[in-house]
Amino acid sequence: MVQVNGNYLKLKAGYLFPEIARRVKAFAAAHPDAPLIRLGIGDVTEPLPAACREAMKAAIDAMGTAEGFYGYGPEQGYLWLREAIARHDFQARGCAIDAEEIFISDGSKCDSSNILDILGPDNRIAVTDPVYPVYVDSNVMAGRTGEADASGRYGGLTYLPITADNGFIAPLPEQPVDLIYLCFPNNPTGAVATRAQLQQWVDHARATGALILFDAAYEAFIQDPELPHSIYEIEGARDCAIEFRSFSKNAGFTGTRCALTVVPRGLMGTTAAGEAVELWGLWNRRQSTKFNGVSYIVQRGAEAVYSAAGQAEVKALVAFYMENAAIIRRELAAAGLQVYGGEQAPYVWLKTPAGLDSWAFFDRLLEEANVVGTPGSGFGAAGEGYFRLSAFNSRANVEEAMARIARASLVPASAGVA
Amino acid sequence: MVQVNGNYLKLKAGYLFPEIARRVKAFAAAHPDAPLIRLGIGDVTEPLPAACREAMKAAIDAMGTAEGFYGYGPEQGYLWLREAIARHDFQARGCAIDAEEIFISDGSKCDSSNILDILGPDNRIAVTDPVYPVYVDSNVMAGRTGEADASGRYGGLTYLPITADNGFIAPLPEQPVDLIYLCFPNNPTGAVATRAQLQQWVDHARATGALILFDAAYEAFIQDPELPHSIYEIEGARDCAIEFRSFSKNAGFTGTRCALTVVPRGLMGTTAAGEAVELWGLWNRRQSTKFNGVSYIVQRGAEAVYSAAGQAEVKALVAFYMENAAIIRRELAAAGLQVYGGEQAPYVWLKTPAGLDSWAFFDRLLEEANVVGTPGSGFGAAGEGYFRLSAFNSRANVEEAMARIARASLVPASAGVA
Repeated sequence: MVQVNGNYLKLKAGYLFPEIARRVKAFAAAHPDAPLIRLGIGDVTEPLPAACREAMKAAIDAMGTAEGFYGYGPEQGYLWLREAIARHDFQARGCAIDAEEIFISDGSKCDSSNILDILGPDNRIAVTDPVYPVYVDSNVMAGRTGEADASGRYGGLTYLPITADNGFIAPLPEQPVDLIYLCFPNNPTGAVATRAQLQQWVDHARATGALILFDAAYEAFIQDPELPHSIYEIEGARDCAIEFRSFSKNAGFTGTRCALTVVPRGLMGTTAAGEAVELWGLWNRRQSTKFNGVSYIVQRGAEAVYSAAGQAEVKALVAFYMENAAIIRRELAAAGLQVYGGEQAPYVWLKTPAGLDSWAFFDRLLEEANVVGTPGSGFGAAGEGYFRLSAFNSRANVEEAMARIARASLVPASAGVA
Repeated sequence: MVQVNGNYLKLKAGYLFPEIARRVKAFAAAHPDAPLIRLGIGDVTEPLPAACREAMKAAIDAMGTAEGFYGYGPEQGYLWLREAIARHDFQARGCAIDAEEIFISDGSKCDSSNILDILGPDNRIAVTDPVYPVYVDSNVMAGRTGEADASGRYGGLTYLPITADNGFIAPLPEQPVDLIYLCFPNNPTGAVATRAQLQQWVDHARATGALILFDAAYEAFIQDPELPHSIYEIEGARDCAIEFRSFSKNAGFTGTRCALTVVPRGLMGTTAAGEAVELWGLWNRRQSTKFNGVSYIVQRGAEAVYSAAGQAEVKALVAFYMENAAIIRRELAAAGLQVYGGEQAPYVWLKTPAGLDSWAFFDRLLEEANVVGTPGSGFGAAGEGYFRLSAFNSRANVEEAMARIARASLVPASAGVA
């Protein structure tokens, strides 16, 4: 009889976002008139840039003609898009990344999961705690972990805590690891790494032969010109890192779907027998065999992000969301809450007031302010006692949410006493 | 040090389509003025239906407004599209398939590869020979096979030959298998299965607990009203089959990207420990974790396929390509070649003339007629001595290609003598 992949059964049933949806649904059923504002899931809300829309419509018109019709494209993406990305996002920042090292895809979530396809089963894996759940779940599904313990941590993974105590910058792992997931600007904490901090990671990875999987989905939100946007701004990173990027958050493509992964030529792994193998060729083969490329229409939209008009619109979108983040930071602090992040990232990470765990704060925020956020414990055991609010919403909704929080009694009477 | 997935190294370097590209490039370099006509890769050529274009442009306009903007959609696809598919493609043909059993994706190639994620490593796998190479390669990459032998067959797979001798309908496997790949209308042979033939497969799968992976990407090309379009037209198929479908070939979406996979509720597999597990939940979890859904814009385009205007355009496209297929069949037969397929499928499968193997015929066709086709041996050892021509091209190109073939000397002098 056909056998299933039993590793899926190790996945915890109470996945974060479905549990949020369940609680919100129950609350809305009990309070049908409550005007909910969602600052939970990190989904953009503002209209798609006009430059992207015009480019996509032009592509559609062309597809209506025999001469302008495009069928199967290169699985790696069209060279004109890969070249625009290489030039604007990498070479302009001093990173020696060529177009052929850039693979266009339909999402960073897909790529950061699919990358496991080309890696061996025995790699020792490090993730931060809290962490974007997909890094962990994709490893569970691929059989690279043991069972989860009571705290939700899976056997076989090395968890690197990121909390206020270490400034949300993970310590280097004490035991040897082969694969390290890093995300800066960070989801969920909103922290960002300096050049010196990333250099430590790159040096560590090179010294140990580890591979860094660097998620830069939020790089556009960095405000400080001194901070690196790409891991390839760091000396030696081409020898030890793969980078994931996305048009989702900067250009509002969460519903349009376009992303990219950088696999430098010369980046090597090893077979079980010790033979060195270039990862570029493996990823190229993986994508050619199991993927058919991103819609031509969407790739034309992504290309328009790099036009002068597109760049101006994307800058305005980022500035808009970052102004939201500043408002959230300011109002939460005024309400007596300890806030982190939100300065180089669209996420504000707050310490739940004394006596409330993450889910208790979720319930209180929902009940007192009708605002939906994300419990920090949903991102990992070390996220307990924290809470994430997203800056992705309209200005009116953000201001209204903050006004409600200012009026609400979110800090329990016992706060400061316990 | 980071380890790679060594199974990739088992893949044969000489993959079919790159080898074709290499030979075509060499020929074009030597004969820069030769007017090549490509009937090789199965890629559509005619403009995208106006109904789809208009729907996508309307979706793009909406995305430019705050009210009409769509961010992350359901990973499974929008319900309005899933419902349209359930109604038109399944319920209208008597198949009890619900919208929630339909998962929208960006390609059948992706889905038919990714489905291995939810299946166990020890399943015994049967493929036809010749076969769509992705079924085999995705199993090689996932470590479900041994090494390839001199003929290109991988250890551990059960190959079911489909040749003129068995009317291109594979015999039931003699040894037990757990996973069976079937594709009707067939790529590459153009054969199609009758209801009775599919019933045999379904009965066999149910009797043995095997899972059928049924690729119906070409169902729109079926002309005979008696022939089944879906495996779910067969009694019992809900208990033993997953079906893959695509908008690529019927609506010209090879460059636009939209497809779907049907996983019936109640379709079960088993864990290594013998526990029964529903595949629907595993696929739902796989897609939710490792995929972010298809572009909203593209889904609106796919939905328009089911409008009255869209249906008329798709019918006209299919009729156009099938007229091409009829021309190819007629002219090849007139040239003295034995032809198969092309009556319920957009592929014509021909027997290479005596004395020529598949690649020798490829070279001769390229040199004598400047026409590019696909050698049957590229699809598997039992495809040796066959050759595929695709009906996907403009009428003018098809007619010109056939006129050249009529003038060329494709049949060696020794034909009929050997």
